[in-house]
Amino acid sequence: MTRSFNFSAGPSTLPLPVLEKVQKEFLSFQGTGMSIIEISHRSNYFEEIMEQTEQLLRELMNIPNNYKVLFVQGGASLQFSMVPMNLLTSYNTSYYVNTGSWAKKAIAEAEKYGEVHVQNCPIHHIPKLSLDSISLVDYVHITTNNTIEGTKFASIPNTGNVPLVADMSSNILSEEYDVEKFGVIYAGAQKNIGPAGLCIVIVREDLVGQNTLHTLPTMLNYETYVKSNSMYNTPPTFNIYIMKLVLEWLKQLGGVQQIEKINKEKAALLYNFLDESTLFYSNVHIENRSLMNIPFNTTSSQLNEQFISEATSAGFYFLKGHRSIGGMRASLYNAMPIDGVKALVSFMKQFEMKARMSNV
Amino acid sequence: MTRSFNFSAGPSTLPLPVLEKVQKEFLSFQGTGMSIIEISHRSNYFEEIMEQTEQLLRELMNIPNNYKVLFVQGGASLQFSMVPMNLLTSYNTSYYVNTGSWAKKAIAEAEKYGEVHVQNCPIHHIPKLSLDSISLVDYVHITTNNTIEGTKFASIPNTGNVPLVADMSSNILSEEYDVEKFGVIYAGAQKNIGPAGLCIVIVREDLVGQNTLHTLPTMLNYETYVKSNSMYNTPPTFNIYIMKLVLEWLKQLGGVQQIEKINKEKAALLYNFLDESTLFYSNVHIENRSLMNIPFNTTSSQLNEQFISEATSAGFYFLKGHRSIGGMRASLYNAMPIDGVKALVSFMKQFEMKARMSNV
Ligand SMILES: Cc1ncc(COP(=O)(O)O)c(C=O)c1O
Ligand SMILES: Cc1ncc(COP(=O)(O)O)c(C=O)c1O
Ligand SMILES: [Mg+2]
Ligand SMILES: [Mg+2]
Ligand SMILES: [Mg+2]
Ligand SMILES: [Mg+2]
Repeated sequence: MTRSFNFSAGPSTLPLPVLEKVQKEFLSFQGTGMSIIEISHRSNYFEEIMEQTEQLLRELMNIPNNYKVLFVQGGASLQFSMVPMNLLTSYNTSYYVNTGSWAKKAIAEAEKYGEVHVQNCPIHHIPKLSLDSISLVDYVHITTNNTIEGTKFASIPNTGNVPLVADMSSNILSEEYDVEKFGVIYAGAQKNIGPAGLCIVIVREDLVGQNTLHTLPTMLNYETYVKSNSMYNTPPTFNIYIMKLVLEWLKQLGGVQQIEKINKEKAALLYNFLDESTLFYSNVHIENRSLMNIPFNTTSSQLNEQFISEATSAGFYFLKGHRSIGGMRASLYNAMPIDGVKALVSFMKQFEMKARMSNV
Repeated sequence: MTRSFNFSAGPSTLPLPVLEKVQKEFLSFQGTGMSIIEISHRSNYFEEIMEQTEQLLRELMNIPNNYKVLFVQGGASLQFSMVPMNLLTSYNTSYYVNTGSWAKKAIAEAEKYGEVHVQNCPIHHIPKLSLDSISLVDYVHITTNNTIEGTKFASIPNTGNVPLVADMSSNILSEEYDVEKFGVIYAGAQKNIGPAGLCIVIVREDLVGQNTLHTLPTMLNYETYVKSNSMYNTPPTFNIYIMKLVLEWLKQLGGVQQIEKINKEKAALLYNFLDESTLFYSNVHIENRSLMNIPFNTTSSQLNEQFISEATSAGFYFLKGHRSIGGMRASLYNAMPIDGVKALVSFMKQFEMKARMSNV
């Protein structure tokens, strides 16, 4: 079997050693004669997985003790509702930084429950924001990495005493963040963590259980997850099991500090080429260039199509850009090996040469 | 590797041929050089899986065209909220038949959103209910199979023009039901369908999109799933892929009609033994005995413990009864082979003999 290079924005490439381990023990977890997907969530086998997974995440992200780690279903999209439903307690008002499509969806949900102040940013650039004097809002919401636009916050804004909430879906565990700067961090698993169907929520404990609205669904209340250790109902056991293996892989590799270095190296390879190339380009402001999602383009939509089609045939998968932006996008999550980026750049060079020749 | 017999109530045993197929193609789905868990939900590969899964379910359950099939996260527990939030539209009133622990949890959620009339039933017996003259309620809710108590409805009550909603988590696809009798059927996947993290909702189309409350979270609105073919956000792709394989397995075996026969045979083996045995017994009224979940007991909690411990050592897993009921419980879902039940009964016979001898 040849392993393809998978540039999907999510679900996306995962570490090969993890996949191999899952395959190997799929029919009999720890010699039990049962698959991990058949094992009761109330068993010691699974409770141990759950505990170890949380511990690994705490270790890798350096999560302080006064933060809770929740395992939730419904994707990051359900957090778009759960955040306002749990956090709008004093002012019924929130403040959202609109940096793109996912932020817009988060805003649309928040508007159902209270007043929302929106700070709009240009699509390719996130200016430095002064938010430290903000007040009379329950929280500030940002999207640390914008999966579709390929931008990231160059630095995390200081919001003083107002809790900062971050959608970190597409760059959690890819670079170091100081968890203490945040009130809530949430991330859909299907990029740097594991299979789709799991969302991780890291929440400062004083923000839990503040909403006493009796119409808050039990499954949408952070307190439910805190009180039950995310076992109020059946959690997505397979996803958590794979998350554990991915975190073990990351720890062995040297943790977040080390993967950040590698991710910077990988991204630089592609950005440098895009800047040199006379055919391909990136529109993103240099300060805000995402390490994870790199949209790029040519000036011809016909060449784009040709590129995507030839790349796919050559084993470079899912390079088509998001439908709202067009062009191409290469997602370089933690599990994308540097060789994948090198191979892609070399393929792009060849493509450019060919294109130039047929134009001569 | 010896395969164990897994009597867990969920997550639970799955068909071995399915597990073997998953293992075989885990590193490279359809020769793509990518794992199924790495593949984009927006790809043709996955869209095809989604379509085929829905078609197979429609075929196996004989689902009429005016019913929609939704793939939702959050488990059956999230449906406890979604049902009232979507269906309380005319009378703000619902009618719940309380047949046990799961029904109680469903009732507690419904009470957050409107008035709830509750019909209580004894724990071991579901009397025949006359609900055909019910009116001025938005829906009637039942639990077709009570996973913890081991009871099932002997027949589905006629609710006239009032939509009947059924939590079918623990017996969907295990016996034939006429979908047309229901307004909504929902079921967590982790018993007869696949891994935990997926919930199937089958809803009559006129019941969708009726709640115009602007505070209904997008992810909790049935209409969101209908309009986007359950692809509004990233669905739990691995769970749906396995669901497809499980449905293919069931179809090949002869479908629901055939598995119902087998399930009746399996359950009869255990019930007959329980009735003959002077040590073990079932408390459930003969008319309401579940085919899927069979709680049983001895008169000594010490013997119970001994039984569970010896059974586990002998490779019969997860026979401990639910903490709210005590004793033992054997779940005999579709994927439990008849040989598993025969082996269990023979083990119980031996245990009884030994117990009698040490008492002589
Ligand atoms: C930044 C960001 N937020 C939210 C989402 C939505 O995630 P989900 O599909 O898990 O709801 C995505 C999905 O790609 C994302 O990239
Ligand atoms: C009948 C019934 N309803 C609801 C549930 C809750 O399901 P979930 O854990 O998927 O929320 C269960 C779980 O076993 C069940 O058996
Ligand atoms: Mg905990
Ligand atoms: Mg250029
Ligand atoms: Mg459909
Ligand atoms: Mg008896």
